[in-house]
Amino acid sequence: MTEKPSLLENSSASLASGQDTYERFSVDQLSNFVTALEAGQDSVVREMLKPLRPQDIASIIEQLTREERKWLLEILPKPLDADILSYLAVPVREEILPLLDPEALADVVRRLESDDAIDLLEDLTEEQKQDILQKVAPQARRILEQGLNYPEESAGRLMQRELVSIPVSWTVGETIDFLRAKEDLPKDFYDFFLVDAQNKPIGVVPLSRAMRNKRVVNLADIMDKDFNLIPVHLDRREVALIFRKYGLVSAPVIDEQGKLVGVITVDDVVNVIDAEAAEDLLKMGGLRASEFHRSIKQTTLSRWIWLAINLFTSILASLIIDRFSSTIERQVALAVLMPLIASMGMNAGTQTITVAVRALAVHDLNPANRWRFLIKEMIVSVINGSGFAVIAVLLAWGWFGDVLIGAIFAAAMFSTLLIAAIVGAAIPIFLDRYRIDPADSSVVLVTTVTDIVAFASFLGLAYWIL
Amino acid sequence: MTEKPSLLENSSASLASGQDTYERFSVDQLSNFVTALEAGQDSVVREMLKPLRPQDIASIIEQLTREERKWLLEILPKPLDADILSYLAVPVREEILPLLDPEALADVVRRLESDDAIDLLEDLTEEQKQDILQKVAPQARRILEQGLNYPEESAGRLMQRELVSIPVSWTVGETIDFLRAKEDLPKDFYDFFLVDAQNKPIGVVPLSRAMRNKRVVNLADIMDKDFNLIPVHLDRREVALIFRKYGLVSAPVIDEQGKLVGVITVDDVVNVIDAEAAEDLLKMGGLRASEFHRSIKQTTLSRWIWLAINLFTSILASLIIDRFSSTIERQVALAVLMPLIASMGMNAGTQTITVAVRALAVHDLNPANRWRFLIKEMIVSVINGSGFAVIAVLLAWGWFGDVLIGAIFAAAMFSTLLIAAIVGAAIPIFLDRYRIDPADSSVVLVTTVTDIVAFASFLGLAYWIL
Repeated sequence: MTEKPSLLENSSASLASGQDTYERFSVDQLSNFVTALEAGQDSVVREMLKPLRPQDIASIIEQLTREERKWLLEILPKPLDADILSYLAVPVREEILPLLDPEALADVVRRLESDDAIDLLEDLTEEQKQDILQKVAPQARRILEQGLNYPEESAGRLMQRELVSIPVSWTVGETIDFLRAKEDLPKDFYDFFLVDAQNKPIGVVPLSRAMRNKRVVNLADIMDKDFNLIPVHLDRREVALIFRKYGLVSAPVIDEQGKLVGVITVDDVVNVIDAEAAEDLLKMGGLRASEFHRSIKQTTLSRWIWLAINLFTSILASLIIDRFSSTIERQVALAVLMPLIASMGMNAGTQTITVAVRALAVHDLNPANRWRFLIKEMIVSVINGSGFAVIAVLLAWGWFGDVLIGAIFAAAMFSTLLIAAIVGAAIPIFLDRYRIDPADSSVVLVTTVTDIVAFASFLGLAYWIL
Repeated sequence: MTEKPSLLENSSASLASGQDTYERFSVDQLSNFVTALEAGQDSVVREMLKPLRPQDIASIIEQLTREERKWLLEILPKPLDADILSYLAVPVREEILPLLDPEALADVVRRLESDDAIDLLEDLTEEQKQDILQKVAPQARRILEQGLNYPEESAGRLMQRELVSIPVSWTVGETIDFLRAKEDLPKDFYDFFLVDAQNKPIGVVPLSRAMRNKRVVNLADIMDKDFNLIPVHLDRREVALIFRKYGLVSAPVIDEQGKLVGVITVDDVVNVIDAEAAEDLLKMGGLRASEFHRSIKQTTLSRWIWLAINLFTSILASLIIDRFSSTIERQVALAVLMPLIASMGMNAGTQTITVAVRALAVHDLNPANRWRFLIKEMIVSVINGSGFAVIAVLLAWGWFGDVLIGAIFAAAMFSTLLIAAIVGAAIPIFLDRYRIDPADSSVVLVTTVTDIVAFASFLGLAYWIL
């Protein structure tokens, strides 16, 4: 998928070769690494890890087996780099956390910025969490506890408390002097949030703009007054939509009184956008979460539930078939053709659901245009349904030499495709309206309906006519 | 899905009420807007648009009908705000571009930053494109033409040419003075890229760090030497993975000689992450692209193709059934139970495909661990397959009072689930290896296989045993 320009090809023995590659380690290097790890060549392993950044080491840990992870943890310098832990995929982190002693964990929490620390504390049991919070300084503990009190997928969880707020009366020069003097600033920041005497944000100045103005310039004269405030309880999906729509790099978070309480930066939002989009994909595929890093036991269990639901709904469809078994006995062509209709119905339904789920997620589909969407889907399905009905007549007629079966087949095909469009559009909209994630159960509901309609219309018509 | 804190509830008559809301207009406001538009109340419409930003106006245009869009274009101030056009969803923009005259378009292109201008030029016909390029100043034209020459989904297309590169010998003070004096800088930037005499990047200094250091400090002393270089031909999906992994806000793009040619900023990457994730979702659902904003004609056509492919593969499965029609005539219970197995196989296969597609997209699944993945999927399917085989025996036995049919049903269920896991894991890996997007055709290939295995194993065993 990617082309490596020639200058990047000389990555060599070590896992990384400084700045001349965009990938820090390749698959080949990973297998060398695993070989060294398995051979117990600790010094080789340490040498290979030296040029890597925490993100790379996290990524290596993710790709190891359970066993190998334990070995690597023994070799990695102690205390474990806080950033490595914070970059790990959640299932892997959940596996590793119990292997660390509480003192080391508390140390990690102390060294992380508040948003990353909260993210990590979430993965612990209530008991472990309290244990570690006790080991943290009272002021930091208060901030972490407040963070943990916000709803799980809210802006409050996403924000960091460390921020740079500047009185609106300051000049560029005063601000620069303040930054040069102050010690405990966040590592990176991109915007100055200007606040009034009540600590309410009233303007934003991007760093690049502040830098381009002379020291005597008042920040109030160069600030944007029209900017996005994020309410602390806002759902993280909405936060992501706002960042994406307005191309934000950071945004101030306010509490119910409109006071500045934190800042959300784009690196956290990037993860949310990816996670939410992945969640929709996985849910549509009948999974609760990415199971790639999960154990066989966890994977088996989560798949089982979905398959069991599917078995149950399929039995409903089979009961319809059973009802018409005497018709099938008389005319076995029905048994040959009926899965065709069900399959077409399921595919047409899934197409409509997929468009609806995506459009709902990004608010393209909303109360103002949902009727228009439903009508469009119906028109599309009438056109395609008519086309496939014609094909259906010809197919069944040619196959079984019976034009009547062809006609019944066509009528069932048409009505199944139409119903698929209607329920495929209506069910996600309905679920979304009642605040159920439409990606969650739309597919199972819609395919149940289309299966039943397919079998009932085809076999019912056949029973009645033949 | 979202909670609005009370202070945000007082958004009133106009579409936006300054800075005190995170949403610029609500659905209610949109319907008021449409009413005013349809009533021809141009001054009311203009008044409502006044407080809005280009992103909001683009979003309103997207939600209007074709007819309404034309009316609004008449009302919007001319020349049309370049940013509005650049924020529009592609299908809507494609609809609107022909309505603008070339002079106005050229003006828009002149006012956009290079990446946005290229993005817009891509939507035009070759003739229109050349026409507009002729109207742009030679230097800008050269930059745009170079950009259009990079492969469609490459870093070269994503980057902007306007950037801030600083000689590595400079101090903080020299840099600030340079910025204050220079006119034609990019609107926002987040990092200084330090270059050597050959214009090769050798270090990065985030703006916030530069600002916190005294004027006399050498940038070389505070720069990161370990940073990510993006080769200009790199696929945009890889660019997005790098930004996400390392939490980047901007990154330098280099050509084959390692020279700095552009910069990619996170706002563009956020769109890529979202677009790529959406693409996987839509492809898995049997769609080529989001059709939400597309016309009925375009939608019908793209759905048709997928349904036709599905009809063809379903016919293959039906041919198997036809082969065993005499067995079904003797034992109609087979016709009742067979869709159950096919449905279970399809669902199990889709689960495995979904995990694989997602894991391949983020490189979690790669040549180093693909065997481990395949084996894990097989183990999971053997466990679940055994469970469902037991249920299958009991179900068929209870339903039809025939333990032999139960046994056949169970055996077919088990083998279909196992095959579903094997092909569900192997096909995406195989497609990815030969650089075919696994989201593209995995579902159709896998369901074809599971359908055929389901029908052939169930009916074949029945034919042989009963």
